[in-house]
Amino acid sequence: MTLSPAETGARRTVRVDLGARGYDIVIGDGLISEAGARIAALFPRARVAIITDETVAELHLPAFKAALEAAGLDHETFPVKPGEASKSFPIFEDLCDRLLASRLERGDVVAALGGGVIGDLAGFVAGVVRRGMPFVQVPTTLLAQVDSSVGGKTGINTRHGKNLVGIFNQPALVLADTAVLDTLSPREFRAGYAEVAKYGLIDDPDFFVWLEENWAGIFEGAPARIEAVAHSCEAKARVVAADEREGGVRALLNLGHTFGHALERGVGYDGALLVHGEGVSIGTVLAHRFSAEMGLCPAEDAERVERHLAIVGLPTHMSDIPGQLPGIPELMRYIAQDKKVSRGALTFILTRGIGRSFIEKGVDPAAVEGFLERSGGGV
Amino acid sequence: MTLSPAETGARRTVRVDLGARGYDIVIGDGLISEAGARIAALFPRARVAIITDETVAELHLPAFKAALEAAGLDHETFPVKPGEASKSFPIFEDLCDRLLASRLERGDVVAALGGGVIGDLAGFVAGVVRRGMPFVQVPTTLLAQVDSSVGGKTGINTRHGKNLVGIFNQPALVLADTAVLDTLSPREFRAGYAEVAKYGLIDDPDFFVWLEENWAGIFEGAPARIEAVAHSCEAKARVVAADEREGGVRALLNLGHTFGHALERGVGYDGALLVHGEGVSIGTVLAHRFSAEMGLCPAEDAERVERHLAIVGLPTHMSDIPGQLPGIPELMRYIAQDKKVSRGALTFILTRGIGRSFIEKGVDPAAVEGFLERSGGGV
Repeated sequence: MTLSPAETGARRTVRVDLGARGYDIVIGDGLISEAGARIAALFPRARVAIITDETVAELHLPAFKAALEAAGLDHETFPVKPGEASKSFPIFEDLCDRLLASRLERGDVVAALGGGVIGDLAGFVAGVVRRGMPFVQVPTTLLAQVDSSVGGKTGINTRHGKNLVGIFNQPALVLADTAVLDTLSPREFRAGYAEVAKYGLIDDPDFFVWLEENWAGIFEGAPARIEAVAHSCEAKARVVAADEREGGVRALLNLGHTFGHALERGVGYDGALLVHGEGVSIGTVLAHRFSAEMGLCPAEDAERVERHLAIVGLPTHMSDIPGQLPGIPELMRYIAQDKKVSRGALTFILTRGIGRSFIEKGVDPAAVEGFLERSGGGV
Repeated sequence: MTLSPAETGARRTVRVDLGARGYDIVIGDGLISEAGARIAALFPRARVAIITDETVAELHLPAFKAALEAAGLDHETFPVKPGEASKSFPIFEDLCDRLLASRLERGDVVAALGGGVIGDLAGFVAGVVRRGMPFVQVPTTLLAQVDSSVGGKTGINTRHGKNLVGIFNQPALVLADTAVLDTLSPREFRAGYAEVAKYGLIDDPDFFVWLEENWAGIFEGAPARIEAVAHSCEAKARVVAADEREGGVRALLNLGHTFGHALERGVGYDGALLVHGEGVSIGTVLAHRFSAEMGLCPAEDAERVERHLAIVGLPTHMSDIPGQLPGIPELMRYIAQDKKVSRGALTFILTRGIGRSFIEKGVDPAAVEGFLERSGGGV
C-alpha cells in the first residue's frame, strides 16, 4: 500500500453504504473548522445540540461553535463529565430531559463532539429523543475516529456489563478531524491504535505489514495518519454494510473484545488503570495466544502481534495492568455475561494467523478458564 | 362492507408489509391458548420474558404461561404496576436491569402481555436490551389491538410530555385475542373504540357508516368485533407500510391526538379522570369542530362524528372531563411541546369531512387558542 502524493493533506471521504441510512465519513486535518458548512449542507437552519465532555469542550468547543456560527446554525451545549462513568442510565436520562427542555425538534441535530463515550451516549440519546433525531459524529480521539463513530452502535453501560443497553443508530455524517488527535495524550493515542491494528489482524495482512513499517509516521501526523484512519474506516464500513446489526460477519470486529471487556470490567472501568483500547490490545494478544495454544495459529504470528503492539507502547499482558484483577472465576463470569454469548457456549473471535480471523461459536468455557490460568490473570 | 360467514369465529391474519421487518397480526377469539405454539414456530427454544402488569397478570397470565409451557418454552415474568405511570425512566431502567440479571440472550424473546402501556414499555425495553431482542405483542385491550401494538412505536413518557423518549421497534408477531376483551370494563372498551372510529374518519367513510350500524355488535363480541379489529389493523398496517417512521402520511393516525395528548397531560395522566382513548374521542370531535369552524368541513359532519362517539358513551367535550383542567395558555404550551411541531408552526390533522382528513402543517397557534376558548376548555 502506498500513499498517493496528491492525497496528502487532502480530505478523504469514506461512504458507509447502508441504502437510505448510508452516510459519509470525512477525514482530514482541520475539519472542525468546516463542521458548520458541512452540517448546514445536510440540515439547513437546524439547531445543533452539542453533547460533549468538559475536557473536550475546553480544547475544541470554541472552534466547533465558531464553525457553526459562521454557517448560521443556532446551537446549545450539553456538557457531561469526562469518562466511561457518563455512559450510565442517570446521565442518559438527564440528557434526554435537557434536550426536551430545550425544545429541540425532530428536524434539529445532535452533534457528538468527543471520544467514544460521547459518541455512544449522544448516539443513544439522539436515537430516542422524540423517537429519533438526526445526529453527527465529530470524533476527537483516534479510537472514536476508527471505530466507535462508525457503524451505528450506541449505548450505555449497566452493572451487568458494558454496552448492554443501547440501539443501532447510524449517524448522518462523521467528521474525523485528524489534527485534533495532536491534543491527545500519547497513552490515549496508543489506545486507539489498538483498533487500527485490529483491522489488519482481522482480514488484511498487507495493512498489518504497512502498520509495522509506518506506525511511527501515524503517531507523528499526516499523511500516514490520514491514510491509517481512512483505511480503518473503509474496513469497518465494509463490514458494517455487509452486516449492520451483527447477525454474522460484523462479530469479527470484536477481535480481542471479549477478553478486553472482561478486563475493563475487572478494573471497574477505571480508566486510570485500563482504557478500552488497552483492554483490546491485551485481549487481541490473548486471542492470538489462545488460538496458537489450540494449534489454530502459528506461534510466531502470535508473537509478532504481541511484538508490534508492545513496540508502540501498548500493554500486552494482564500483568501489565496496575493493581489487582478479580480472580479467574469472576473474569469467566464477565465473559459469559458479555453479549457475544449464545445458549451457554462462548463465542470468540479466533484466528488462523495474521489477517485470518474467524468467528468460533462453540468455545468451551473450561478451555478459556485453563488458558487464563496459564496466562497469569486474576491471581 | 359485509361479513363473510365463513370468516365468523375464524382467525384473521393481517400482514404488516415492511420487508425484512414485516410481521403478522393474528386476530381471533382464544388466541392466547395458541401463543406458545405460534411463538415457538418463530423462535424455537427461546426463553420468553413476559412483561405484564399486575391486573392483566391476574386475568390472563395463567393461560399465557400454560400455552408457553405446552409448547416447551421456558419463561420468566416481569410484572409492573398497572397504569400510565409505569411508562417512566425508573421503570424502564429497572426492567432493562432485571432482564439482564436474568441473563436473557439475544435470541430470546420479550412478550408484552397487556394494554398500550405494557406494549410501549416492553417494546422499548426489548429494543434496547443487548441492542435489541425480538418481541411479541399480546395486546389485551381494544386500544392496543387496533392501535398501539401495530406499527412499532414504543417509548415512555417524560415530564415534558407523552412518548417523548422511545424508538421505532417492530414486533415479530402480534396476537390479538378478541375474547380477552370481554374482561375489559365498558369504559376501557369504549376508549379503544375511539381509535376504531378514527380509521373511518381518516380516509374510509364506508367503514364509518358500517360502524354507525354495527357498533353494538362490536361491543357484544364476535363476529363484528373480529371484523372491526381486523379492518382497523389493516388500515393501520397500510399507513405504517407506506411511512414507517412518520415522515409523512403516517401523521394522519394522529387525528384527534394533538388535542387529546394536551388534555391527558392537563389531568396529569390521571386515568381516573381521562384515559387515552377518551382524550382521542374529545380530540377527534375538537378536530372536526375546528375544521368546521375554519370552513373546511361541513358542520353536519362534525355533528355526526360527535353524535356517534356520544352514542357509544364516549366523552366528546372538554367539559365531560371531571375536575379542573389547566387554563388555555397551559394547554397551548402542551400542544406546542407535542412532537408534531415543526419550526414554530403547529401541525394538526384537519378534515374536509367524514373520511377526508389531511395534514395541515401551518396552523396558526392564535386560531387554535381562540377555538379552545370558544370551546369552553380550561376555565
